[in-house]
Amino acid sequence: MSVAIVMGSASDASIMDDAVQTLRSFGVPVEVRVLSAHRTPDDTLAFARGALDAGIKVIIAAAGGSAHLAGVLAAATPLPVVGVPIALADLGGLDSLLSMAQMPKGVPVATVGVNGSRNAALLAIRIMALSDPRLAADLVRFTQELAEQVRDQDAEIVARYKQG
Amino acid sequence: MSVAIVMGSASDASIMDDAVQTLRSFGVPVEVRVLSAHRTPDDTLAFARGALDAGIKVIIAAAGGSAHLAGVLAAATPLPVVGVPIALADLGGLDSLLSMAQMPKGVPVATVGVNGSRNAALLAIRIMALSDPRLAADLVRFTQELAEQVRDQDAEIVARYKQG
Amino acid sequence: MSVAIVMGSASDASIMDDAVQTLRSFGVPVEVRVLSAHRTPDDTLAFARGALDAGIKVIIAAAGGSAHLAGVLAAATPLPVVGVPIALADLGGLDSLLSMAQMPKGVPVATVGVNGSRNAALLAIRIMALSDPRLAADLVRFTQELAEQVRDQDAEIVARYKQG
Amino acid sequence: MSVAIVMGSASDASIMDDAVQTLRSFGVPVEVRVLSAHRTPDDTLAFARGALDAGIKVIIAAAGGSAHLAGVLAAATPLPVVGVPIALADLGGLDSLLSMAQMPKGVPVATVGVNGSRNAALLAIRIMALSDPRLAADLVRFTQELAEQVRDQDAEIVARYKQG
Amino acid sequence: MSVAIVMGSASDASIMDDAVQTLRSFGVPVEVRVLSAHRTPDDTLAFARGALDAGIKVIIAAAGGSAHLAGVLAAATPLPVVGVPIALADLGGLDSLLSMAQMPKGVPVATVGVNGSRNAALLAIRIMALSDPRLAADLVRFTQELAEQVRDQDAEIVARYKQG
Amino acid sequence: MSVAIVMGSASDASIMDDAVQTLRSFGVPVEVRVLSAHRTPDDTLAFARGALDAGIKVIIAAAGGSAHLAGVLAAATPLPVVGVPIALADLGGLDSLLSMAQMPKGVPVATVGVNGSRNAALLAIRIMALSDPRLAADLVRFTQELAEQVRDQDAEIVARYKQG
Amino acid sequence: MSVAIVMGSASDASIMDDAVQTLRSFGVPVEVRVLSAHRTPDDTLAFARGALDAGIKVIIAAAGGSAHLAGVLAAATPLPVVGVPIALADLGGLDSLLSMAQMPKGVPVATVGVNGSRNAALLAIRIMALSDPRLAADLVRFTQELAEQVRDQDAEIVARYKQG
Amino acid sequence: MSVAIVMGSASDASIMDDAVQTLRSFGVPVEVRVLSAHRTPDDTLAFARGALDAGIKVIIAAAGGSAHLAGVLAAATPLPVVGVPIALADLGGLDSLLSMAQMPKGVPVATVGVNGSRNAALLAIRIMALSDPRLAADLVRFTQELAEQVRDQDAEIVARYKQG
Repeated sequence: MSVAIVMGSASDASIMDDAVQTLRSFGVPVEVRVLSAHRTPDDTLAFARGALDAGIKVIIAAAGGSAHLAGVLAAATPLPVVGVPIALADLGGLDSLLSMAQMPKGVPVATVGVNGSRNAALLAIRIMALSDPRLAADLVRFTQELAEQVRDQDAEIVARYKQG
Repeated sequence: MSVAIVMGSASDASIMDDAVQTLRSFGVPVEVRVLSAHRTPDDTLAFARGALDAGIKVIIAAAGGSAHLAGVLAAATPLPVVGVPIALADLGGLDSLLSMAQMPKGVPVATVGVNGSRNAALLAIRIMALSDPRLAADLVRFTQELAEQVRDQDAEIVARYKQG
Repeated sequence: MSVAIVMGSASDASIMDDAVQTLRSFGVPVEVRVLSAHRTPDDTLAFARGALDAGIKVIIAAAGGSAHLAGVLAAATPLPVVGVPIALADLGGLDSLLSMAQMPKGVPVATVGVNGSRNAALLAIRIMALSDPRLAADLVRFTQELAEQVRDQDAEIVARYKQG
Repeated sequence: MSVAIVMGSASDASIMDDAVQTLRSFGVPVEVRVLSAHRTPDDTLAFARGALDAGIKVIIAAAGGSAHLAGVLAAATPLPVVGVPIALADLGGLDSLLSMAQMPKGVPVATVGVNGSRNAALLAIRIMALSDPRLAADLVRFTQELAEQVRDQDAEIVARYKQG
Repeated sequence: MSVAIVMGSASDASIMDDAVQTLRSFGVPVEVRVLSAHRTPDDTLAFARGALDAGIKVIIAAAGGSAHLAGVLAAATPLPVVGVPIALADLGGLDSLLSMAQMPKGVPVATVGVNGSRNAALLAIRIMALSDPRLAADLVRFTQELAEQVRDQDAEIVARYKQG
Repeated sequence: MSVAIVMGSASDASIMDDAVQTLRSFGVPVEVRVLSAHRTPDDTLAFARGALDAGIKVIIAAAGGSAHLAGVLAAATPLPVVGVPIALADLGGLDSLLSMAQMPKGVPVATVGVNGSRNAALLAIRIMALSDPRLAADLVRFTQELAEQVRDQDAEIVARYKQG
Repeated sequence: MSVAIVMGSASDASIMDDAVQTLRSFGVPVEVRVLSAHRTPDDTLAFARGALDAGIKVIIAAAGGSAHLAGVLAAATPLPVVGVPIALADLGGLDSLLSMAQMPKGVPVATVGVNGSRNAALLAIRIMALSDPRLAADLVRFTQELAEQVRDQDAEIVARYKQG
Repeated sequence: MSVAIVMGSASDASIMDDAVQTLRSFGVPVEVRVLSAHRTPDDTLAFARGALDAGIKVIIAAAGGSAHLAGVLAAATPLPVVGVPIALADLGGLDSLLSMAQMPKGVPVATVGVNGSRNAALLAIRIMALSDPRLAADLVRFTQELAEQVRDQDAEIVARYKQG
């Protein structure tokens, strides 16, 4: 029972490392791959077709520009596929976001925000938590920790701007 | 074990009916609600907080413009939340898509395409199929039927344009 | 009688400090908070619901990306809420601007420009000046000072480019 | 004590009528004008400069394209100015929204969404309610009615989709 | 020696018929197919891999939204692939255009304008004319006819607006 | 002494007729042509090169999509060239506006708004009025008439919304 | 007989200096001013109304964001007004471009590209050359020099890439 | 038998050098030129008209902003023209992409992605490979090498993230 993180190029690893660390911090096994919809299409299809039997539960796919990777994977597996649009140097990731989100009827991709690596991991965890009570409990804790972090920031800012 | 479809306004029902019918065609129980992040925030929060215990597995949220509904729900439940950006009369849904997809770190929304009602349903089914072998088998059949439909279109178009 | 400045993350403080200083320069008491629509939704709602009784007159809310904070606050208070769209690294703030401005009928947000921290403060002051003659007089002086600054710039530029 | 609704062209009246009716439903006196920043600049300035003394509390300004009207008014009055970007046939109102929202430091415009006539009125009412307890009470009632309308829609949709 | 026109859905035929007729008017054999990158990925790959041996010289691929078809074909054939971004109901084809044009290094797609069916055909003809003197001569004639049509329009407009 | 209105296609005449009528209402002789930067490049260049000697003072060029016409004309004449971006069915004229406005250093095009036919004519008249006192006087009258039209609209709207 | 360059803020001078130098290199007297549509509206109107009698032939106006300056000037003078949209830190100048170009019928602004300072100057020179044979001759020379510069670049590049 | 790379300015060479090196690595003779649609229109036309007879098979044209170069060349030659939109400092290349892709019916440009220099070269090679068996074989090898590079990246990433 693991999550696969697939990126279109090794250069996406600087963004996707956050997803790896997030999943590991939840104790979720992660498999990380570089597979290109356009440069290794056969490897990509073979991976997608074998993913279910390999015990993968969710595939996270990251790509930029004509970001076809998530859609190509989603077409070849019944598993849920989460797409992370990577921003290239130009156009601010709008190309990647539209290429991932605007999928035709029949083949969904669960798109998160531009460079939204951590949220992709958390979405995968939410999905896996449906059948894993430990993960569900950890998610509740995580949400509480998030709130605590914001409350700490709040206390720090309130103090900084206290009129005196 | 059901899917909840939540829309920000009853006027979204013309788009979201496709999601209801898709889920029902897979035998998935559906609960449909109108809840507004801005006009009934308490009802919305109460719904989100009770969703897990009510046996809901996935929440599909549809909204247009400043489309906060999906994010507000995702903040109040550990369940996976799928967002459907609804196109308003102006701006072609770009506002709705960005409002849904660009969530801050910690609270993911699984965004599908503009007016992507059917794909939201299919994403929910993919998620539920992880622990439901019948759904998994139905998804495989569905994918085969999709392929058959395209092949029928292909045959029709090949015939139409056959040079003779 | 004060203005509350609420930001979704402490990292917005570098932008919002300008609003704090502007309000203080007009002698308006300021309360600065970090509250997240998605990470501390209960704190956010509690704050919004208590704001009127706490003597707050205007709430300024700053957030980036799926910038729901201003809308969530506006849904829970009858006070005027001013929204400051914060530009993230990608997309130039277009996502933040659309997420704030395109609110559904019934719940308005007074949106200013991207990173428009100072103008948010000045809008709050205009609102409070309606019932505060000293503020109204200070606004007139401020507008005159603005004009003087431009006239100084004009004199400097006219001199710089004087043909001779 | 009234609100002025200023539009750049009589053709904007079909959009702005909603603001007029909303304000009147709250018992707020409304003055409606056609004033053009570009075609009657003197009338526009004279109106803005006399607005405070005429007992106007908030100015709502509607314009499309290079939507300068709100900014020009805001430059000539210390009153809060609410801007309504009107969508022209092309570009979906993006031009109007950016022209209104992206004001320079010093002169704020409270921008609402594209064609957001009703929300402009409600923002004006929120502002006026700060010093008018009856309006404040009416706003609370209005918010409750909004919620009731959504709950009625919810009941209708729940019934429509009840599985039986 | 033929051109293949591949569309992602039979609904694209109303746009792509212009390409078929244009190619036939130049005497170029056309094969028209419906193949979906997402719904019949195997058929699509098989087609692309066999295209060269089937005597196809250029592949024209039309798709809308997450328009991956052209890129998927280009990844599986060394033939030149021309992409036609089809405009969906929303977003004016910007999603389709960016999905097609922004291909990663190594796999080019020759993208024409939104719904640019005829120009895709003419681009294919230019490519084939490199090794077909008859086509090259026909292209010169076509260009002259285009010029004549514009000159006829010019004469008609000059006459219509002749001041008298 | 005349103005030339050049359009890339006779289909632009429905938009450009407004420019013709506006110029004629000012007594300015108009020459209307259909010349295509891409389909009749030689005619276009010949026209541009002869324009000065033909007594033309200003060239107005209208085109849509890759709207090169104005730039191509400006490159071949020292006359001022006014560009009118024509909106095609998709993309709302954004393509046309950017194609016209973003000219490289050295070759300016005076771009007006999308479909801004009348303003192109008025810009040409402003330019010609620099050396034609009658036109200058007519422009002043025109501006006064514009103001009168707005004042008539104002009176009509004030009456319509007079509370009674 | 001069050209006025008006900027909304002294910070625009780094962009507009190119326009000043270009005009001076053609021997055209330049007057440079800082005038703000929003901060010194009276000075701006007074300037615009006196421009014709002051012997100004063309006004170049530069502003960013809600770039109203050019439109406000054009409303108050019959002179041709050239607008230079200045790019702010966010949104790449799209806001400035749309605010300048999309003027209502009746009041044209001759918009050049984002930060297009030099082209604004050259457009002014083209306009003034209509009644100034020396400028007309200088423009021809300038165009020839432009061509020579490109030809020098061409020679340099041809040499650099000469295969040998 | 060669490919011509034409750029609108020598400053584009930093982007286009990749195309030169790619073509040379395939043994394709390259001619590199600087020709400006706006500054040396005659040279540009002369080049385009002589290209076929000079043995050029494909023209690659790179330009930014109002990127007319590719279209102007395509209008004057029956050869296939590949357009490379160059991103300027502002607007992320959206202006260049739309200026190149949205060509009118009759004159196609094969547009690749923003700054897509290498893909332009590869598209030219695909076109030339139609009649050059050695190039066709080299393309197959190149595609295999691309796949190998991705597989090397995959191995490196798999190793880096191997859990142990």
